[in-house]
Amino acid sequence: MSLDYSSLLRDDLPPPAAQPWSGFPAYNFVGGNVDGEHVPTQGLIDAAARVLAREGRTLATYNLESGPQGYLPLRRCVAEALARRTGMATSAEEVLITSGSNHAIELVGDALLAPGDTLLIERETYGGKLSRLKKREVNVVGVPLDEGGMRMDALDATLGDLAAKGIKPKYIYTIPTVQNPTGTVMSRERRLELLEIARRHDVLIFEDDCYADLLWAEARPPTIRSLDAGGGQVIYCGSYSKSIAPALRIGYLVADWDFMRHVLPLKTDGGTGAVTQMLLAEYAAGNFDAHVEDLNRGLQAKLAVMVEAVESEFGTSAEFTLPKGGIVLWIKLPDEVDTTRLAQAAAAEGVAINPGAEWVCDPDYGRSRLRLCFANPSETAIRDGVAKLAEICHREFGVPTRSANIER
Amino acid sequence: MSLDYSSLLRDDLPPPAAQPWSGFPAYNFVGGNVDGEHVPTQGLIDAAARVLAREGRTLATYNLESGPQGYLPLRRCVAEALARRTGMATSAEEVLITSGSNHAIELVGDALLAPGDTLLIERETYGGKLSRLKKREVNVVGVPLDEGGMRMDALDATLGDLAAKGIKPKYIYTIPTVQNPTGTVMSRERRLELLEIARRHDVLIFEDDCYADLLWAEARPPTIRSLDAGGGQVIYCGSYSKSIAPALRIGYLVADWDFMRHVLPLKTDGGTGAVTQMLLAEYAAGNFDAHVEDLNRGLQAKLAVMVEAVESEFGTSAEFTLPKGGIVLWIKLPDEVDTTRLAQAAAAEGVAINPGAEWVCDPDYGRSRLRLCFANPSETAIRDGVAKLAEICHREFGVPTRSANIER
Repeated sequence: MSLDYSSLLRDDLPPPAAQPWSGFPAYNFVGGNVDGEHVPTQGLIDAAARVLAREGRTLATYNLESGPQGYLPLRRCVAEALARRTGMATSAEEVLITSGSNHAIELVGDALLAPGDTLLIERETYGGKLSRLKKREVNVVGVPLDEGGMRMDALDATLGDLAAKGIKPKYIYTIPTVQNPTGTVMSRERRLELLEIARRHDVLIFEDDCYADLLWAEARPPTIRSLDAGGGQVIYCGSYSKSIAPALRIGYLVADWDFMRHVLPLKTDGGTGAVTQMLLAEYAAGNFDAHVEDLNRGLQAKLAVMVEAVESEFGTSAEFTLPKGGIVLWIKLPDEVDTTRLAQAAAAEGVAINPGAEWVCDPDYGRSRLRLCFANPSETAIRDGVAKLAEICHREFGVPTRSANIER
Repeated sequence: MSLDYSSLLRDDLPPPAAQPWSGFPAYNFVGGNVDGEHVPTQGLIDAAARVLAREGRTLATYNLESGPQGYLPLRRCVAEALARRTGMATSAEEVLITSGSNHAIELVGDALLAPGDTLLIERETYGGKLSRLKKREVNVVGVPLDEGGMRMDALDATLGDLAAKGIKPKYIYTIPTVQNPTGTVMSRERRLELLEIARRHDVLIFEDDCYADLLWAEARPPTIRSLDAGGGQVIYCGSYSKSIAPALRIGYLVADWDFMRHVLPLKTDGGTGAVTQMLLAEYAAGNFDAHVEDLNRGLQAKLAVMVEAVESEFGTSAEFTLPKGGIVLWIKLPDEVDTTRLAQAAAAEGVAINPGAEWVCDPDYGRSRLRLCFANPSETAIRDGVAKLAEICHREFGVPTRSANIER
């Protein structure tokens, strides 16, 4: 007779997995996968040969010989890249290597967020972040965006309203450069305005730059943290998930020591995977900029294929603004389309999409929106998958009425 | 003017780090570091060249193309090693790759433990585990050990006492093979007795075999999980931290799907580091057994040096039982020695030790005990460090009175 686990489980668990994983859908437009053609495989092999021969024996110690903030050459590499690519002077002592940027976001949450706390966030934002915040039982207030990112008039008004109720948010979370999912970029002027508002209301800013390397439509603006010039108003995180590969699981937090010292005791994972830190430091030091330039050319070409497919298959039914970089297209369909239902119908036929309701603070606002990640599928898969999605959408909701100039 | 972080922090945080990490102590006998000479550097380099050339492009997707349980070839490798080395038939579907075995332990805790719950644990056990349980606000009941591991008479009596109070523990946690810190091994007979007791009281067993590969003084007994023969009474975890290198951060959970399915949604880390999973699977498939044999010969030699040093420097003041494998010596000093104070005095002079109070359920029991990890320091460092420790102990507590046949 088998033990009955159900009586042992906590009573607040998420639903269990239905069955073991059985492979990717044929047309996979969800999440944050990147382009397999651009993983720098040979560069990583060469890096492994050099760095493991030189320092492989240090794997015998937790944290190598670099302490809990992570492999020192990688922290230096992050600091130098931030200085070189964004003009943000950074020291290795301000950098904490994490297992992806979500890990950095979680550690900051562990340090700051208690149940009942309030924080401000872009109305459209990363779905996984929202579900984690919900678990923390915090009050998430969404601030609307326009084509230049988070709207400063709305932010100022929201902070004023909260102050009138005696509520001071723990921080303002923003993805200012290639926002996820909207692809917008906040201008230098707006960043300065954001800083001014945050200072006036005495609120911390959490700047998430995890997509910032994938910007091709304009020059990269200075980070908000660099504009603060050591004022301690901004903590920052970034990632190699999009610029090199997500399965590496390497991100980083950048903060003053005065903040960092409180975060370190919360990182109880025995260190972030050291082999990957070593390979990445060894590879990225000399190759990162050229790699990203090449990667972005490839992404830009795939975006063009995706845009052409959506315009051809959905016609005027699909509204979107061209993203300035990144890996996703954020689309508004006619009001009669419920994208959560569309996603279910599409999944049954091998097309995976992120319904808008999962990527916004207010599910109603996301109801007819969807997010399509174009980085991983081949150009053929993009064309075929979008055609299939349009066909399913027409069948379920009656739109689009015309596809590829053919009446349905 | 800088932002004041102190008003933003949660009020239940652990003490902040005092300063950035500044290097290892000269004589480092703490934690779970292993021997740098035995990290299979060249094997990992060769593995990297092969596996990244073949499958490097799959790093572009979260979880490679293996789903949330981890890289399939590594899960197969774990399953085959368990069958081959312990006789436990295991399928890849029962294996979840985690970022070290602590991560497996944490995930099981997330699934099972709510504040106020009770669990049973060996009285002497891994310190980090105890501090994490304390944070969960659970009731930890210690079961004493003898030279054959957890005492079954004490376990049965404890379960009876709890039942009389209407308390049913969530699980019995045990390290049956090369227990940390005592180095004991539970016999096959005792394992069968443990299973019988657990079944009679209807309690789950959590078997932690993270040190089990480092057993040299006797043949490895069958795992408790294998003796249960599919009864679902036992969940199991293991690790490559001790057998290959801790900085890899690769461990695994083994459980029936019926349990596994509840754990998977709790693993929200975007997957365990995939480069390391790939390298490890590629390396371990053909080399693991020979590597471990070689490693164990080296550890056994270092243990001999440590034992000789302790006997020479502490004489009859140090009582211990020779561990059957592993990387630590667990020592009892005379009652007048407070090892927490000794650890502080020693740290100031470059000798790091784990005081017993941090590795037992009842701090009083650990007061005069200490744990010395001998795997990482060189033989010279072991000799010199133990001599220095004896000198400090004599100065602070008056014992040992004789060292290396010289009266102090």
